[in-house]
Amino acid sequence: MDRVSPRSSAADAVRTREAIVGRAVDVSSLEGLEGLTIGRLAGDLRMSKSGLLGHFGTKESLQLATLDAALRRFREEVWDRVDDEPPGLPRLLALCDAWISYLERGVFPGGCFLTAAAAEFDGREGPVREAVADALALWYRVLEAEVRTAAKAGQLPPDTDARAVALQLNALAMGANQAHQLLGDRRALRTARALMRDVLGASGR
Amino acid sequence: MDRVSPRSSAADAVRTREAIVGRAVDVSSLEGLEGLTIGRLAGDLRMSKSGLLGHFGTKESLQLATLDAALRRFREEVWDRVDDEPPGLPRLLALCDAWISYLERGVFPGGCFLTAAAAEFDGREGPVREAVADALALWYRVLEAEVRTAAKAGQLPPDTDARAVALQLNALAMGANQAHQLLGDRRALRTARALMRDVLGASGR
Repeated sequence: MDRVSPRSSAADAVRTREAIVGRAVDVSSLEGLEGLTIGRLAGDLRMSKSGLLGHFGTKESLQLATLDAALRRFREEVWDRVDDEPPGLPRLLALCDAWISYLERGVFPGGCFLTAAAAEFDGREGPVREAVADALALWYRVLEAEVRTAAKAGQLPPDTDARAVALQLNALAMGANQAHQLLGDRRALRTARALMRDVLGASGR
Repeated sequence: MDRVSPRSSAADAVRTREAIVGRAVDVSSLEGLEGLTIGRLAGDLRMSKSGLLGHFGTKESLQLATLDAALRRFREEVWDRVDDEPPGLPRLLALCDAWISYLERGVFPGGCFLTAAAAEFDGREGPVREAVADALALWYRVLEAEVRTAAKAGQLPPDTDARAVALQLNALAMGANQAHQLLGDRRALRTARALMRDVLGASGR
Protein backbone atom coordinates (compact mmCIF):
# COMPACT_ATOMS: atom_id res chain seq x y z
CA MET A 1 0.00 0.00 0.00
CA ASP A 2 1.31 3.45 -0.90
CA ARG A 3 2.32 5.78 1.81
CA VAL A 4 -0.50 8.16 2.70
CA SER A 5 0.76 11.36 4.23
CA PRO A 6 -0.92 14.59 5.28
CA ARG A 7 -1.02 17.11 2.41
CA SER A 8 -2.27 20.58 2.03
CA SER A 9 -4.85 20.75 -0.74
CA ALA A 10 -8.50 19.88 -0.29
CA ALA A 11 -8.34 17.30 -3.08
CA ASP A 12 -5.46 15.55 -1.36
CA ALA A 13 -7.39 15.57 1.90
CA VAL A 14 -10.31 13.89 0.14
CA ARG A 15 -8.03 11.24 -1.35
CA THR A 16 -6.42 10.56 2.01
CA ARG A 17 -9.81 10.28 3.62
CA GLU A 18 -10.92 7.82 0.93
CA ALA A 19 -7.79 5.72 1.45
CA ILE A 20 -8.45 5.60 5.19
CA VAL A 21 -12.09 4.64 4.71
CA GLY A 22 -11.22 2.04 2.07
CA ARG A 23 -8.82 0.34 4.43
CA ALA A 24 -11.30 0.68 7.30
CA VAL A 25 -13.97 -1.12 5.26
CA ASP A 26 -11.68 -4.10 4.66
CA VAL A 27 -10.50 -4.29 8.28
CA SER A 28 -13.97 -3.96 9.76
CA SER A 29 -15.42 -6.47 7.30
CA LEU A 30 -13.20 -9.07 8.97
CA GLU A 31 -13.01 -7.81 12.53
CA GLY A 32 -16.08 -5.64 13.01
CA LEU A 33 -16.57 -1.90 13.27
CA GLU A 34 -15.60 -2.11 16.94
CA GLY A 35 -12.41 -3.86 15.83
CA LEU A 36 -11.35 -0.67 14.04
CA THR A 37 -8.67 0.99 16.07
CA ILE A 38 -7.05 4.26 15.14
CA GLY A 39 -3.64 2.82 15.99
CA ARG A 40 -4.02 -0.28 13.83
CA LEU A 41 -5.33 1.70 10.88
CA ALA A 42 -2.64 4.35 11.20
CA GLY A 43 -0.03 1.57 11.20
CA ASP A 44 -1.56 -0.09 8.11
CA LEU A 45 -1.55 3.23 6.25
CA ARG A 46 1.79 4.41 7.65
CA MET A 47 0.17 7.54 9.05
CA SER A 48 0.46 9.04 12.49
CA LYS A 49 -2.48 8.45 14.83
CA SER A 50 -2.97 12.20 15.16
CA GLY A 51 -2.86 12.60 11.35
CA LEU A 52 -5.57 9.95 10.98
CA LEU A 53 -7.69 11.38 13.79
CA GLY A 54 -7.38 14.79 12.08
CA HIS A 55 -9.53 13.40 9.28
CA PHE A 56 -12.26 11.98 11.51
CA GLY A 57 -12.06 13.42 14.98
CA THR A 58 -13.42 10.35 16.75
CA LYS A 59 -13.58 6.61 16.31
CA GLU A 60 -17.36 6.93 15.98
CA SER A 61 -17.05 9.33 13.01
CA LEU A 62 -14.66 6.87 11.41
CA GLN A 63 -17.12 4.01 12.02
CA LEU A 64 -19.97 6.01 10.49
CA ALA A 65 -17.89 6.94 7.42
CA THR A 66 -16.83 3.30 7.06
CA LEU A 67 -20.40 2.03 7.28
CA ASP A 68 -21.47 4.63 4.74
CA ALA A 69 -18.76 3.55 2.29
CA ALA A 70 -19.65 -0.12 2.75
CA LEU A 71 -23.34 0.56 2.15
CA ARG A 72 -22.45 2.50 -1.00
CA ARG A 73 -20.43 -0.47 -2.22
CA PHE A 74 -23.34 -2.82 -1.48
CA ARG A 75 -25.68 -0.56 -3.43
CA GLU A 76 -23.30 -0.42 -6.39
CA GLU A 77 -22.73 -4.17 -6.38
CA VAL A 78 -26.33 -5.25 -5.87
CA TRP A 79 -28.96 -2.60 -6.38
CA ASP A 80 -27.39 -0.46 -9.12
CA ARG A 81 -26.80 -3.60 -11.20
CA VAL A 82 -30.52 -4.27 -11.56
CA ASP A 83 -31.68 -0.69 -11.95
CA ASP A 84 -32.23 -1.13 -15.70
CA GLU A 85 -34.42 -4.20 -15.26
CA PRO A 86 -38.19 -3.80 -15.65
CA PRO A 87 -39.78 -3.06 -12.23
CA GLY A 88 -41.50 -5.86 -10.33
CA LEU A 89 -40.70 -9.54 -10.68
CA PRO A 90 -37.95 -9.26 -13.36
CA ARG A 91 -36.08 -6.76 -11.21
CA LEU A 92 -36.59 -8.89 -8.07
CA LEU A 93 -35.21 -11.99 -9.79
CA ALA A 94 -32.22 -10.04 -11.10
CA LEU A 95 -31.75 -8.58 -7.64
CA CYS A 96 -31.58 -12.03 -6.05
CA ASP A 97 -28.95 -13.06 -8.62
CA ALA A 98 -26.92 -9.91 -7.97
CA TRP A 99 -27.24 -10.46 -4.20
CA ILE A 100 -25.98 -14.04 -4.35
CA SER A 101 -23.26 -13.02 -6.79
CA TYR A 102 -22.16 -10.30 -4.35
CA LEU A 103 -21.75 -12.99 -1.69
CA GLU A 104 -20.10 -15.43 -4.10
CA ARG A 105 -17.58 -12.91 -5.43
CA GLY A 106 -16.58 -11.92 -1.89
CA VAL A 107 -17.09 -8.18 -2.46
CA PHE A 108 -16.18 -7.76 1.20
CA PRO A 109 -13.48 -10.07 2.59
CA GLY A 110 -15.68 -10.94 5.59
CA GLY A 111 -18.96 -11.55 3.73
CA CYS A 112 -22.07 -9.37 3.89
CA PHE A 113 -21.12 -6.13 5.62
CA LEU A 114 -24.61 -5.10 6.69
CA THR A 115 -25.38 -8.50 8.22
CA ALA A 116 -22.15 -8.37 10.22
CA ALA A 117 -22.74 -4.79 11.35
CA ALA A 118 -26.32 -5.62 12.32
CA ALA A 119 -25.20 -8.54 14.50
CA GLU A 120 -22.43 -6.42 16.02
CA PHE A 121 -24.55 -3.40 16.89
CA ASP A 122 -28.00 -4.80 17.67
CA GLY A 123 -27.04 -5.05 21.36
CA ARG A 124 -25.49 -1.57 21.51
CA GLU A 125 -26.84 1.96 21.55
CA GLY A 126 -25.76 5.12 19.78
CA PRO A 127 -25.38 6.66 16.32
CA VAL A 128 -23.71 3.64 14.68
CA ARG A 129 -26.53 1.36 15.75
CA GLU A 130 -29.05 3.90 14.47
CA ALA A 131 -27.26 4.11 11.11
CA VAL A 132 -27.20 0.32 10.79
CA ALA A 133 -30.90 0.10 11.68
CA ASP A 134 -31.73 2.83 9.15
CA ALA A 135 -29.86 0.94 6.44
CA LEU A 136 -31.68 -2.30 7.20
CA ALA A 137 -35.06 -0.54 7.33
CA LEU A 138 -34.30 1.09 3.95
CA TRP A 139 -33.34 -2.25 2.43
CA TYR A 140 -36.64 -3.75 3.66
CA ARG A 141 -38.54 -0.82 2.12
CA VAL A 142 -36.78 -1.28 -1.21
CA LEU A 143 -37.57 -5.00 -1.28
CA GLU A 144 -41.17 -4.52 -0.15
CA ALA A 145 -41.82 -1.79 -2.73
CA GLU A 146 -40.59 -4.07 -5.51
CA VAL A 147 -42.72 -6.97 -4.23
CA ARG A 148 -45.80 -4.71 -4.16
CA THR A 149 -45.05 -3.58 -7.71
CA ALA A 150 -44.89 -7.22 -8.79
CA ALA A 151 -48.16 -8.01 -7.01
CA LYS A 152 -49.91 -5.02 -8.62
CA ALA A 153 -48.68 -6.15 -12.03
CA GLY A 154 -50.13 -9.62 -11.44
CA GLN A 155 -46.65 -11.20 -11.34
CA LEU A 156 -47.25 -12.30 -7.74
CA PRO A 157 -50.59 -13.17 -6.06
CA PRO A 158 -52.58 -10.01 -5.15
CA ASP A 159 -52.63 -10.96 -1.43
CA THR A 160 -48.83 -11.34 -1.24
CA ASP A 161 -47.49 -10.19 2.14
CA ALA A 162 -44.66 -7.92 0.96
CA ARG A 163 -43.03 -7.76 4.37
CA ALA A 164 -43.00 -11.55 4.69
CA VAL A 165 -41.44 -11.94 1.23
CA ALA A 166 -38.79 -9.34 2.08
CA LEU A 167 -38.09 -11.17 5.35
CA GLN A 168 -37.66 -14.46 3.49
CA LEU A 169 -35.32 -13.06 0.84
CA ASN A 170 -33.22 -11.27 3.44
CA ALA A 171 -33.17 -14.34 5.69
CA LEU A 172 -32.01 -16.59 2.85
CA ALA A 173 -29.19 -14.20 1.98
CA MET A 174 -28.18 -14.15 5.66
CA GLY A 175 -28.32 -17.93 6.03
CA ALA A 176 -26.30 -18.49 2.86
CA ASN A 177 -23.76 -15.87 3.88
CA GLN A 178 -23.32 -17.57 7.26
CA ALA A 179 -22.91 -21.09 5.84
CA HIS A 180 -20.52 -19.79 3.17
CA GLN A 181 -18.38 -17.64 5.46
CA LEU A 182 -18.24 -19.91 8.47
CA LEU A 183 -18.49 -23.41 7.00
CA GLY A 184 -17.06 -22.74 3.54
CA ASP A 185 -20.32 -24.12 2.11
CA ARG A 186 -20.52 -22.69 -1.41
CA ARG A 187 -23.49 -24.91 -2.24
CA ALA A 188 -25.50 -22.87 0.29
CA LEU A 189 -25.30 -19.90 -2.10
CA ARG A 190 -26.83 -21.88 -4.96
CA THR A 191 -29.44 -23.37 -2.65
CA ALA A 192 -30.41 -19.92 -1.39
CA ARG A 193 -30.70 -18.61 -4.96
CA ALA A 194 -33.06 -21.47 -5.85
CA LEU A 195 -35.09 -20.92 -2.66
CA MET A 196 -35.36 -17.18 -3.39
CA ARG A 197 -36.87 -18.10 -6.76
CA ASP A 198 -39.31 -20.46 -5.02
CA VAL A 199 -40.36 -17.58 -2.74
CA LEU A 200 -41.00 -15.45 -5.83
CA GLY A 201 -42.96 -18.23 -7.51
CA ALA A 202 -40.32 -18.55 -10.21
CA SER A 203 -38.78 -21.97 -9.46
CA GLY A 204 -36.66 -23.34 -12.26
CA ARG A 205 -36.36 -20.01 -14.07
CA MET B 1 -24.37 -8.82 42.24
CA ASP B 2 -22.69 -10.48 45.22
CA ARG B 3 -19.03 -10.01 45.74
CA VAL B 4 -17.07 -12.89 44.21
CA SER B 5 -13.70 -13.36 45.84
CA PRO B 6 -11.00 -15.99 45.53
CA ARG B 7 -11.57 -18.87 47.94
CA SER B 8 -9.77 -22.02 48.72
CA SER B 9 -12.02 -25.01 48.16
CA ALA B 10 -12.59 -26.64 44.78
CA ALA B 11 -16.36 -26.19 45.07
CA ASP B 12 -15.89 -22.47 45.64
CA ALA B 13 -13.58 -22.29 42.65
CA VAL B 14 -16.27 -23.91 40.49
CA ARG B 15 -18.89 -21.44 41.76
CA THR B 16 -16.60 -18.49 41.09
CA ARG B 17 -15.86 -19.78 37.62
CA GLU B 18 -19.60 -20.15 36.95
CA ALA B 19 -20.25 -16.60 38.14
CA ILE B 20 -17.55 -15.30 35.83
CA VAL B 21 -18.85 -17.23 32.85
CA GLY B 22 -22.46 -16.24 33.58
CA ARG B 23 -21.52 -12.58 33.57
CA ALA B 24 -19.34 -13.10 30.47
CA VAL B 25 -22.30 -14.62 28.60
CA ASP B 26 -24.44 -11.55 29.29
CA VAL B 27 -21.72 -9.05 28.41
CA SER B 28 -20.70 -10.83 25.20
CA SER B 29 -24.32 -11.30 24.14
CA LEU B 30 -24.51 -7.50 23.89
CA GLU B 31 -20.97 -6.57 22.93
CA GLY B 32 -19.50 -9.67 21.32
CA LEU B 33 -16.94 -12.21 22.49
CA GLU B 34 -14.20 -9.81 21.42
CA GLY B 35 -15.88 -7.18 23.58
CA LEU B 36 -15.11 -9.27 26.67
CA THR B 37 -12.25 -7.68 28.48
CA ILE B 38 -10.72 -9.11 31.62
CA GLY B 39 -10.67 -5.61 33.17
CA ARG B 40 -14.34 -4.91 32.52
CA LEU B 41 -15.42 -8.31 33.78
CA ALA B 42 -13.24 -8.09 36.87
CA GLY B 43 -14.79 -4.68 37.62
CA ASP B 44 -18.34 -6.02 37.17
CA LEU B 45 -17.61 -8.91 39.53
CA ARG B 46 -15.49 -6.87 41.95
CA MET B 47 -12.58 -9.23 41.46
CA SER B 48 -8.98 -8.43 40.74
CA LYS B 49 -7.84 -8.91 37.15
CA SER B 50 -5.24 -11.41 38.28
CA GLY B 51 -7.85 -13.30 40.34
CA LEU B 52 -10.08 -13.56 37.27
CA LEU B 53 -7.22 -14.56 34.98
CA GLY B 54 -6.29 -17.24 37.52
CA HIS B 55 -9.53 -19.02 36.59
CA PHE B 56 -9.01 -18.88 32.82
CA GLY B 57 -5.42 -18.07 32.00
CA THR B 58 -6.16 -16.28 28.73
CA LYS B 59 -8.91 -14.23 27.16
CA GLU B 60 -9.28 -17.01 24.59
CA SER B 61 -10.00 -19.64 27.28
CA LEU B 62 -12.58 -17.29 28.75
CA GLN B 63 -14.17 -16.81 25.30
CA LEU B 64 -14.32 -20.57 24.74
CA ALA B 65 -15.85 -21.18 28.18
CA THR B 66 -18.36 -18.39 27.53
CA LEU B 67 -19.35 -19.79 24.13
CA ASP B 68 -19.71 -23.24 25.68
CA ALA B 69 -22.01 -21.92 28.41
CA ALA B 70 -24.09 -20.00 25.87
CA LEU B 71 -24.47 -23.07 23.65
CA ARG B 72 -25.54 -25.10 26.68
CA ARG B 73 -28.18 -22.50 27.47
CA PHE B 74 -29.39 -22.57 23.85
CA ARG B 75 -29.66 -26.37 23.98
CA GLU B 76 -31.59 -26.22 27.26
CA GLU B 77 -33.95 -23.53 26.01
CA VAL B 78 -34.58 -24.94 22.55
CA TRP B 79 -33.52 -28.51 21.97
CA ASP B 80 -34.10 -30.07 25.41
CA ARG B 81 -37.63 -28.63 25.42
CA VAL B 82 -38.68 -30.78 22.47
CA ASP B 83 -36.81 -33.93 23.37
CA ASP B 84 -39.99 -35.68 24.52
CA GLU B 85 -41.84 -34.97 21.25
CA PRO B 86 -42.20 -37.82 18.75
CA PRO B 87 -39.27 -37.78 16.27
CA GLY B 88 -39.78 -36.30 12.83
CA LEU B 89 -42.34 -33.65 11.94
CA PRO B 90 -43.94 -33.24 15.41
CA ARG B 91 -40.52 -32.64 16.94
CA LEU B 92 -39.53 -30.25 14.13
CA LEU B 93 -42.70 -28.20 14.61
CA ALA B 94 -42.18 -28.08 18.37
CA LEU B 95 -38.56 -27.14 17.76
CA CYS B 96 -39.55 -24.17 15.60
CA ASP B 97 -41.92 -23.00 18.34
CA ALA B 98 -39.22 -23.35 21.00
CA TRP B 99 -36.72 -21.53 18.75
CA ILE B 100 -39.02 -18.56 18.15
CA SER B 101 -39.98 -18.55 21.84
CA TYR B 102 -36.27 -18.45 22.75
CA LEU B 103 -35.93 -15.31 20.61
CA GLU B 104 -39.17 -13.81 21.90
CA ARG B 105 -38.34 -14.36 25.57
CA GLY B 106 -34.92 -12.76 25.14
CA VAL B 107 -33.02 -15.67 26.69
CA PHE B 108 -29.87 -13.70 25.84
CA PRO B 109 -30.03 -9.92 26.21
CA GLY B 110 -28.51 -9.43 22.73
CA GLY B 111 -30.62 -12.01 20.85
CA CYS B 112 -29.39 -15.28 19.38
CA PHE B 113 -25.90 -15.91 20.73
CA LEU B 114 -24.75 -18.33 18.02
CA THR B 115 -25.85 -16.00 15.21
CA ALA B 116 -23.94 -13.13 16.77
CA ALA B 117 -20.84 -15.23 17.41
CA ALA B 118 -20.97 -16.58 13.85
CA ALA B 119 -21.07 -13.07 12.38
CA GLU B 120 -18.31 -11.93 14.72
CA PHE B 121 -15.89 -14.79 14.04
CA ASP B 122 -16.51 -15.77 10.43
CA GLY B 123 -13.78 -13.35 9.31
CA ARG B 124 -11.29 -14.44 11.98
CA GLU B 125 -9.12 -17.49 12.51
CA GLY B 126 -8.34 -19.57 15.58
CA PRO B 127 -9.95 -21.83 18.17
CA VAL B 128 -12.98 -19.61 18.87
CA ARG B 129 -13.89 -19.50 15.18
CA GLU B 130 -13.47 -23.30 15.03
CA ALA B 131 -15.73 -23.78 18.06
CA VAL B 132 -18.41 -21.51 16.55
CA ALA B 133 -18.20 -23.36 13.22
CA ASP B 134 -18.46 -26.73 15.00
CA ALA B 135 -21.56 -25.55 16.86
CA LEU B 136 -23.23 -24.36 13.65
CA ALA B 137 -22.31 -27.57 11.82
CA LEU B 138 -23.76 -29.61 14.70
CA TRP B 139 -26.98 -27.59 14.65
CA TYR B 140 -27.30 -28.22 10.91
CA ARG B 141 -26.77 -31.96 11.47
CA VAL B 142 -29.44 -32.04 14.19
CA LEU B 143 -31.95 -30.26 11.94
CA GLU B 144 -31.11 -32.37 8.89
CA ALA B 145 -31.39 -35.64 10.82
CA GLU B 146 -34.85 -34.67 12.04
CA VAL B 147 -35.93 -33.66 8.52
CA ARG B 148 -34.72 -37.01 7.16
CA THR B 149 -36.64 -38.82 9.91
CA ALA B 150 -39.77 -36.92 8.91
CA ALA B 151 -39.23 -37.75 5.22
CA LYS B 152 -38.71 -41.46 5.98
CA ALA B 153 -41.91 -41.48 8.03
CA GLY B 154 -43.83 -39.99 5.09
CA GLN B 155 -44.42 -36.73 6.99
CA LEU B 156 -42.45 -34.81 4.34
CA PRO B 157 -42.04 -35.68 0.64
CA PRO B 158 -39.49 -38.49 0.10
CA ASP B 159 -37.29 -36.29 -2.12
CA THR B 160 -37.03 -33.52 0.52
CA ASP B 161 -33.59 -31.86 0.47
CA ALA B 162 -32.78 -31.99 4.19
CA ARG B 163 -29.91 -29.51 3.89
CA ALA B 164 -32.11 -26.99 2.07
CA VAL B 165 -34.85 -27.31 4.71
CA ALA B 166 -32.29 -26.84 7.50
CA LEU B 167 -30.91 -23.79 5.68
CA GLN B 168 -34.39 -22.30 5.40
CA LEU B 169 -35.29 -22.85 9.06
CA ASN B 170 -31.98 -21.45 10.24
CA ALA B 171 -32.23 -18.49 7.86
CA LEU B 172 -35.73 -17.63 9.06
CA ALA B 173 -34.60 -17.69 12.69
CA MET B 174 -31.66 -15.42 11.76
CA GLY B 175 -33.81 -12.99 9.80
CA ALA B 176 -36.41 -12.78 12.55
CA ASN B 177 -33.72 -12.31 15.18
CA GLN B 178 -32.20 -9.46 13.18
CA ALA B 179 -35.50 -7.64 12.59
CA HIS B 180 -36.47 -8.12 16.23
CA GLN B 181 -33.15 -7.06 17.74
CA LEU B 182 -32.30 -4.20 15.44
CA LEU B 183 -35.70 -2.83 14.36
CA GLY B 184 -37.77 -3.90 17.37
CA ASP B 185 -40.04 -5.77 14.94
CA ARG B 186 -41.83 -8.37 17.08
CA ARG B 187 -44.14 -9.25 14.21
CA ALA B 188 -41.11 -10.68 12.41
CA LEU B 189 -41.01 -13.47 14.99
CA ARG B 190 -44.60 -14.49 14.29
CA THR B 191 -44.03 -14.21 10.55
CA ALA B 192 -40.94 -16.42 10.78
CA ARG B 193 -42.86 -19.01 12.81
CA ALA B 194 -45.58 -19.16 10.14
CA LEU B 195 -42.99 -19.36 7.36
CA MET B 196 -41.16 -22.20 9.16
CA ARG B 197 -44.46 -24.10 9.20
CA ASP B 198 -44.87 -23.43 5.46
CA VAL B 199 -41.40 -24.86 4.88
CA LEU B 200 -42.44 -27.99 6.80
CA GLY B 201 -45.69 -28.26 4.84
CA ALA B 202 -47.71 -27.58 7.97
CA SER B 203 -49.20 -24.12 7.28
CA GLY B 204 -52.01 -23.16 9.59
CA ARG B 205 -51.19 -25.82 12.18
